[in-house]
Amino acid sequence: MSLIDTLQWRYATKKYDTTKKVDEADVQKIVEAARLAPTSSGLQQFRVLVITNQEIKEKLVDVSFGQEIVKDCSHLLVFASWDKYTEERIDSAFDFATDVRELPRGRFNSYTDKLKSIYLPQSQEENFIHTAKQAYIGMAMSIAQAAELKIDATPMEGFENDKLDEILGLKIKGLSSVLMLPIGYRDEGNDWNASLNKVRIPTEEFVLEIK
Amino acid sequence: MSLIDTLQWRYATKKYDTTKKVDEADVQKIVEAARLAPTSSGLQQFRVLVITNQEIKEKLVDVSFGQEIVKDCSHLLVFASWDKYTEERIDSAFDFATDVRELPRGRFNSYTDKLKSIYLPQSQEENFIHTAKQAYIGMAMSIAQAAELKIDATPMEGFENDKLDEILGLKIKGLSSVLMLPIGYRDEGNDWNASLNKVRIPTEEFVLEIK
Repeated sequence: MSLIDTLQWRYATKKYDTTKKVDEADVQKIVEAARLAPTSSGLQQFRVLVITNQEIKEKLVDVSFGQEIVKDCSHLLVFASWDKYTEERIDSAFDFATDVRELPRGRFNSYTDKLKSIYLPQSQEENFIHTAKQAYIGMAMSIAQAAELKIDATPMEGFENDKLDEILGLKIKGLSSVLMLPIGYRDEGNDWNASLNKVRIPTEEFVLEIK
Repeated sequence: MSLIDTLQWRYATKKYDTTKKVDEADVQKIVEAARLAPTSSGLQQFRVLVITNQEIKEKLVDVSFGQEIVKDCSHLLVFASWDKYTEERIDSAFDFATDVRELPRGRFNSYTDKLKSIYLPQSQEENFIHTAKQAYIGMAMSIAQAAELKIDATPMEGFENDKLDEILGLKIKGLSSVLMLPIGYRDEGNDWNASLNKVRIPTEEFVLEIK
């Protein structure tokens, strides 16, 4: 099945079957797709938390405006990005890159200097807006991978980020939450969203051609 | 080939073969993947411009810090998001959704009222940060679809957005540019980035499990 077909198949699942768990091998693939996602300057400014602890999942319902999918899903993924750019983070990412590529460290110094000159003078808020955007790419890849495996997923922006960060102890890791992605298997009979037609604006409205 | 394998195959192409063009049917699939991407509240806050006009592509090199991939690629995709939320945009998206779903218009009024109460009091800048994030999801789906078809692509954030918006006449459409995605076929022998190892931090650093 092609990506387009899997994207046609998927939908934002609103009710999960609590008796069905996603195989660990499949969870690993879903996370691996996010790990392989491209990011700005290759910095991989986000991490993925995989939460199966039921007590924690239940606590997170309270900071998600009561949305029960957070606890009913098989695995709850949380995408959390660097709270800010630092010289150390940029250097460390590029030292790793040169090591992997068997190039001398510092090979990209002029590039990292440019990145530092852009990001370090920015406010922490501006930094986080940028790192958060990268998490959206990762989440998209995880959604696509889940759909390929016929695993349901629900992209979620709506939760109380600060409270979630506190519950998960993200601050001390220099991370702030961006997105949640419950994954699992739909409870089709009890999901009001399962049978509704997919809504997308027509191609002729979505695409603007400049020939 | 699975999504993970295609993501392993892809890389940020830095040199395109100017003699090879992507089939229109494949371009349509790449754009279709973006159209099918999930977005916040299903509002589809972004559009995709598909640029093949060579004169325009060459003009865009100047606002892209001289990056020649912008003109050398087969098709240049530009992801542009709503410059702001308006009552009309939210109502129109939900009127369309209820029509597609054969539900009475206004069926989701309490939800759209909530969205309006969140977005309309925000600054235009805050609005655009949010609409821009949705374009990242769309771009990710296009990258995945291109890779599935063995078509190269280069995600790009670095360009002068205001100047690009002016060249493409986006302002009058209520859109602002977010990302560019040149697509085409790599000129492997002349692409310094083609032979380098892919760099991704190890899974054990990328994933945080909470069991």
